[in-house]
Amino acid sequence: MSAQFPNIPRIAYEGAQSKNPFAFKHYNPDELVEGKSMREHLRFSMVYWHTMCGQGADMFGAPTAIRPWDDGKSGLDQAKARVPVFFEMAEKLQMPYWAFHDRDISPHGKTLRESNEWLDTIVGLCKEQQKRTGIKLLWGTAQLFVHPRFMHGAATSPNAEVFAFAAAQVKKALEVTHELGGEGYTFWGGREGYMTLWNTDMKRELDHLAKFLHMAVDHAKAIGFKGQFYIEPKPKEPTKHQYDSDAAACLNFLREYNLLPYFKLNLETNHATLAGHSMQHEMEVAGAAGALGSLDANTGDLLLGWDTDQFLTDTPVATQMMLSALKYGGLTTGGVNFDAKVRRESIDPEDLFFAHIGGMDAFARGLKNAAAIRADGRIDQFMKQRYASWDTGLGARIEAGQESFASLEAFALEKGEAAPNISGRQEYLENIVNELT
Amino acid sequence: MSAQFPNIPRIAYEGAQSKNPFAFKHYNPDELVEGKSMREHLRFSMVYWHTMCGQGADMFGAPTAIRPWDDGKSGLDQAKARVPVFFEMAEKLQMPYWAFHDRDISPHGKTLRESNEWLDTIVGLCKEQQKRTGIKLLWGTAQLFVHPRFMHGAATSPNAEVFAFAAAQVKKALEVTHELGGEGYTFWGGREGYMTLWNTDMKRELDHLAKFLHMAVDHAKAIGFKGQFYIEPKPKEPTKHQYDSDAAACLNFLREYNLLPYFKLNLETNHATLAGHSMQHEMEVAGAAGALGSLDANTGDLLLGWDTDQFLTDTPVATQMMLSALKYGGLTTGGVNFDAKVRRESIDPEDLFFAHIGGMDAFARGLKNAAAIRADGRIDQFMKQRYASWDTGLGARIEAGQESFASLEAFALEKGEAAPNISGRQEYLENIVNELT
Amino acid sequence: MSAQFPNIPRIAYEGAQSKNPFAFKHYNPDELVEGKSMREHLRFSMVYWHTMCGQGADMFGAPTAIRPWDDGKSGLDQAKARVPVFFEMAEKLQMPYWAFHDRDISPHGKTLRESNEWLDTIVGLCKEQQKRTGIKLLWGTAQLFVHPRFMHGAATSPNAEVFAFAAAQVKKALEVTHELGGEGYTFWGGREGYMTLWNTDMKRELDHLAKFLHMAVDHAKAIGFKGQFYIEPKPKEPTKHQYDSDAAACLNFLREYNLLPYFKLNLETNHATLAGHSMQHEMEVAGAAGALGSLDANTGDLLLGWDTDQFLTDTPVATQMMLSALKYGGLTTGGVNFDAKVRRESIDPEDLFFAHIGGMDAFARGLKNAAAIRADGRIDQFMKQRYASWDTGLGARIEAGQESFASLEAFALEKGEAAPNISGRQEYLENIVNELT
Amino acid sequence: MSAQFPNIPRIAYEGAQSKNPFAFKHYNPDELVEGKSMREHLRFSMVYWHTMCGQGADMFGAPTAIRPWDDGKSGLDQAKARVPVFFEMAEKLQMPYWAFHDRDISPHGKTLRESNEWLDTIVGLCKEQQKRTGIKLLWGTAQLFVHPRFMHGAATSPNAEVFAFAAAQVKKALEVTHELGGEGYTFWGGREGYMTLWNTDMKRELDHLAKFLHMAVDHAKAIGFKGQFYIEPKPKEPTKHQYDSDAAACLNFLREYNLLPYFKLNLETNHATLAGHSMQHEMEVAGAAGALGSLDANTGDLLLGWDTDQFLTDTPVATQMMLSALKYGGLTTGGVNFDAKVRRESIDPEDLFFAHIGGMDAFARGLKNAAAIRADGRIDQFMKQRYASWDTGLGARIEAGQESFASLEAFALEKGEAAPNISGRQEYLENIVNELT
Repeated sequence: MSAQFPNIPRIAYEGAQSKNPFAFKHYNPDELVEGKSMREHLRFSMVYWHTMCGQGADMFGAPTAIRPWDDGKSGLDQAKARVPVFFEMAEKLQMPYWAFHDRDISPHGKTLRESNEWLDTIVGLCKEQQKRTGIKLLWGTAQLFVHPRFMHGAATSPNAEVFAFAAAQVKKALEVTHELGGEGYTFWGGREGYMTLWNTDMKRELDHLAKFLHMAVDHAKAIGFKGQFYIEPKPKEPTKHQYDSDAAACLNFLREYNLLPYFKLNLETNHATLAGHSMQHEMEVAGAAGALGSLDANTGDLLLGWDTDQFLTDTPVATQMMLSALKYGGLTTGGVNFDAKVRRESIDPEDLFFAHIGGMDAFARGLKNAAAIRADGRIDQFMKQRYASWDTGLGARIEAGQESFASLEAFALEKGEAAPNISGRQEYLENIVNELT
Repeated sequence: MSAQFPNIPRIAYEGAQSKNPFAFKHYNPDELVEGKSMREHLRFSMVYWHTMCGQGADMFGAPTAIRPWDDGKSGLDQAKARVPVFFEMAEKLQMPYWAFHDRDISPHGKTLRESNEWLDTIVGLCKEQQKRTGIKLLWGTAQLFVHPRFMHGAATSPNAEVFAFAAAQVKKALEVTHELGGEGYTFWGGREGYMTLWNTDMKRELDHLAKFLHMAVDHAKAIGFKGQFYIEPKPKEPTKHQYDSDAAACLNFLREYNLLPYFKLNLETNHATLAGHSMQHEMEVAGAAGALGSLDANTGDLLLGWDTDQFLTDTPVATQMMLSALKYGGLTTGGVNFDAKVRRESIDPEDLFFAHIGGMDAFARGLKNAAAIRADGRIDQFMKQRYASWDTGLGARIEAGQESFASLEAFALEKGEAAPNISGRQEYLENIVNELT
Repeated sequence: MSAQFPNIPRIAYEGAQSKNPFAFKHYNPDELVEGKSMREHLRFSMVYWHTMCGQGADMFGAPTAIRPWDDGKSGLDQAKARVPVFFEMAEKLQMPYWAFHDRDISPHGKTLRESNEWLDTIVGLCKEQQKRTGIKLLWGTAQLFVHPRFMHGAATSPNAEVFAFAAAQVKKALEVTHELGGEGYTFWGGREGYMTLWNTDMKRELDHLAKFLHMAVDHAKAIGFKGQFYIEPKPKEPTKHQYDSDAAACLNFLREYNLLPYFKLNLETNHATLAGHSMQHEMEVAGAAGALGSLDANTGDLLLGWDTDQFLTDTPVATQMMLSALKYGGLTTGGVNFDAKVRRESIDPEDLFFAHIGGMDAFARGLKNAAAIRADGRIDQFMKQRYASWDTGLGARIEAGQESFASLEAFALEKGEAAPNISGRQEYLENIVNELT
Repeated sequence: MSAQFPNIPRIAYEGAQSKNPFAFKHYNPDELVEGKSMREHLRFSMVYWHTMCGQGADMFGAPTAIRPWDDGKSGLDQAKARVPVFFEMAEKLQMPYWAFHDRDISPHGKTLRESNEWLDTIVGLCKEQQKRTGIKLLWGTAQLFVHPRFMHGAATSPNAEVFAFAAAQVKKALEVTHELGGEGYTFWGGREGYMTLWNTDMKRELDHLAKFLHMAVDHAKAIGFKGQFYIEPKPKEPTKHQYDSDAAACLNFLREYNLLPYFKLNLETNHATLAGHSMQHEMEVAGAAGALGSLDANTGDLLLGWDTDQFLTDTPVATQMMLSALKYGGLTTGGVNFDAKVRRESIDPEDLFFAHIGGMDAFARGLKNAAAIRADGRIDQFMKQRYASWDTGLGARIEAGQESFASLEAFALEKGEAAPNISGRQEYLENIVNELT
């Protein structure tokens, strides 16, 4: 097995004051937080697509980062060469999990049959690496957006045969995910949406999408795959409007088509903000619906309108995310999956390490901050007082369904004015957060 | 009865080339479009709040437009004086409908009892005016966002007594809407959301909101009100995030709490764009769910991030809106309701007329454009061809539930490649639209 | 010479009611508007990059539109094959002008010397086609953003040798532009900005950019090139922040470095909106500074945050643009340059025609609308009245520099209150525009 | 003198671990940072408008926070009562500076003369409080946006008499600023812009604005006022588009009209982001032009499109701001001025303290972080290396004006390829920042 990064040691915890750029400052995998190790809480995952396939191309520019392990190779040879490099990197970074699309680990063959064969070859290599390293598969997925066949959508294509090819591809992706012991399977519908409503039958397309997902559920049963299904919201890009635009739109769709029992949400920070929501909002919406699944951990730039997929280093946001995760019982099947890429100008392999170290540390720090806020208890205490009127008396009766407009009108006419409101104390609460973080 | 606008004639159709600024260029109420009069299609409605209560104040400035009929008056006297002025204006503009909040037609009394008495007085005057003019009530609603009592929400307040006062107010508003023969009742939750998640229990607040709406449904049954209930999406402003943020979020909520049978959506153009959607998108989402109710007809400025509530004069947008309305069977209980205000600098009463004339003409033109596009048929024809693969063979079998991932994989392996995609033809379709409009 | 489009006739004017999709509805090149032909007013220009090099790739997808003339070719062969196709298309569309980047007409060679030789070859072919068709070069430019060499900027690179290579490339591009009789030369600095301020010395980079532009001015003098220099504002994409972010930022830079005498602005609709401005605003800013140069005619989607480069078909926007152009004396050296591309799903060569026809018609219609508004005179008249207080008396004295704070305070204390404001009449003015368009 | 806040002690430094909500965690005024006390670095300033006049009204709601000291008072009586309260608060918060608009400290009289007399009265009271407390005036300004007179602009009004009234008001505001020993005077043009270009002569209005500012400069000379003039950028709100839209637009205007020698910029965080820029960007633009003046310290919410004027508590942003301030020599005449307001729901006087404590601590922490980054030196070192090619050889010759396109082409042809680019290292640099903060 090749060793691509001989000069980069296994990244270990050295503490916040360390000046070693190849060290964790905050992520100490064995450190306990609320009685569980940071490793178990955070379930970090490295993604194959950005890490191995990203080369810095953008809409206005050619690739900038030609990796040494890619040099001169292409097709299946390149795919084979990348596998040990990826796992070496993941191992050095102490990543317990990884994630992939079928076509980033293995290329398109001339036919579907050939693509499947090649995929099996690469999956075999990945399985060996999983065994060697102990790294597990967080989730798999199928890439249904790069190939021109999917230009008008995959499950929502106006071309029924494209639906069939998408189905065939997901079938295989599901099977190899199962073979690799994947703990989940994710749907992100980059082309499931529209470029213009002038040529789109939204209702019919959504019916097809629901049909597709039910087929996936059925096939999982057929093959004994018990991993969690995820659906990943994103409002736009590459299309003008994707159907899975945000957490609420996904839940609405899942409810309408009786799919909610089978799916949770894989929330991505940058997708949340593109939809006009904070990530904390999306996590609360998902959590309240019992559908908080997994996190694609990255960040956008709120002054830019596209998916920048940057590594999140903003401690306040990481703190909010970890607080919502802890509130809803933690990431049980999901993880903190680094769907993030180095900037186009960060052209060295070292930059891949810097980026992941920074991201892992941000979430580790966020986790410790979140635990500190919970341990402190002042915010919880404030919340209890704020809603206290609902715990007894009138509020409790309303919650119990014992009041009506008529009874409440009688109450109001008699009472004259509602009890005074207490201050929302936003600034005080923000100060507590800042004090503890 | 006072005649406030002696110099302004009843606005009538004079045709597109007329230079009379007090004339419709496109709105000819009796003209038939698809076999129905424009009056019946458009069901124009004038709103009391902006028209009578708007005086040009903004966050940085004092009122600019002191209306002659308001001069020196306040409280109930002012409220009484405004009623005939509003109906005179609506009559001159040939508005078949109007809409109101309880507290814009009548002020807060010292107690709820006094507020209710005053409201009854004003409702009596409105009833007379309705009778005199034939103008009907499109919908009523309760203003649950101005009073400081509602600072933290009404149905979603952390203060249970505030919930009770909101319930009492909606009970009364529902009753007077019924008394005035209102064809609908609308909920817009300007304070039903949060300023910060640090102090908010979203799940508990949504439970309360659902409880509140069920009480409203029950009370409507109790009093025999058979009008349509509407819920109006808006993502933000005045709060950081409102629960009814867009059509999909509303539908998700209505589904979760078994309220979908009782509610349709009242969609507002400016709210759609604040949520990051085109109005056409929101109408399609609502239409596909059978929940397209009524339209709050205005526009925002896509370069500004707040609710400008401008009169829509953009013909392309009006065309899209009318096309979606026709597609889903028209505005049956709803209408084109001008929830729009003149700019702060448009300080003359004449400006109220210019604004409504422009808005009515824009929608009349949009309606005629939409009918022309439908009559032309080329776009429909293109759509039929685009989805033809779903009407027979493989597509039809998928729709009928006769295929699975396994059968589709077999098909794909056998077929080799999907049938070629046809061009999406967006530019051609846009040219057709431009040719016809 | 090949005839790639045998089934597509020369596009001619057939009038707005024509259902021939390969006909102009509004653009009648010889029709006089304000005494000048539409051809002379609009100075339409077709761009080489999107038209010949665009193949539908996006950040999430592979090319979708493989053109017949590209089939199997690459490198210089492909470049040669494209030239007659481009000019055939431009000829059929009756485009009087075209525009190019050095590296879209001709590829990178192995060395700069080879690139230059190849460029000379292709320029020779273009020159023949120009002669054959009478189509002229609106402007040329150098592509300084695709090559990885320019990842950190071209004139603003932290690497001085990159500056030298950029200089060499612009020198040659300027020379071939001159050889082709180009009427202008444009600078668009897609990489002249920053990805992060943490690694950027903005001041030093701007100094270098100014140095670079002065060298270009000097070289133009040296070779006798008398065409107009343009600088093209865009706020972001591909970088986080480009220095030429909007018209005002460009003007500020040009003033600071004494470049304003040599440069005008090449304004692009989509870039204006990405910067948060209407295109009308940018044209007014440029016009007021005497720097309105040329137009990159496209549109963005205001609900999307990236450069969609769609063909503009929105009549109201085209009307505003043509009105500003007429106001500032028309596009003298510049033109209406279609820096626009068909959607990724519009995969047929026909779509290139539909797109340009639609765009040309939109601007032709806009031009006629603008002339109608000017001929009507009501808006001009309103403007005269609105500012009348500045034409005589106090206003005229202020403009003449004859008043001071002291004299004006004396006036105000004496006067008691200012003359009443007149209504801004925005809705009335919008109605006039709608009436005439 | 009244003591409105008997239960709130003078806020002092207790350190980051303190749980006393009425204490600074980071702001220790006497602590030295880079050899200067935090007090001198930060020059904190409290604003009269939000603090004393803000009552929680918004576009959809009535005031929520009726202050005890306002109770039952109005007009000049209320104005008198507020003065000691403001200074008591500022004193307890250890604010060395304050800022005001003429009409927030003192109301409109019936005539300008009366307004001036009242203003003199209140200014007298403020002067006494300044003397008693040692608190100094950072800057004064005139409120030229609330009064309906200014609906179409003040210096840019189409009504010349409005210009005169604005001039009279600024004259007086300048004089009382001088009387109070103000160290600066600020222009923020909330109405200096347009609502629609259909009724606006932008060029003429800008000419008037320049005339106005020159009159102010002249009057300052006349009265011996030597304080710094500031102009404050904001792109929009209340108008659709303000002329002073961002730092670059202001600089362009100041250069065009020869005003740059007299003005620096007063940059506001929320205004920067509304203009699509980071605050760090705006500070760099101003700093590079030698025009970095003062800071209006607040934050917007990047998911909202209006001026939220929240207290900034985001440590990363505060760090960036303080780093730019230190880089450009610190806030010499300016300060960190809290142009920020408590949320509408934060209705208690205590909330005013929480908010300012949080804001002051955020900037204190930001200052210490910025100093730590500078002391660490790694980022500076990286920058030096990054631009090293400009310090000698080719780069130095270019900077010295010794190269031309011809010489650079010769160099490039000879060299073959530019020296390799080094990685931009964005993630590494972000990690350093996070390590140190």
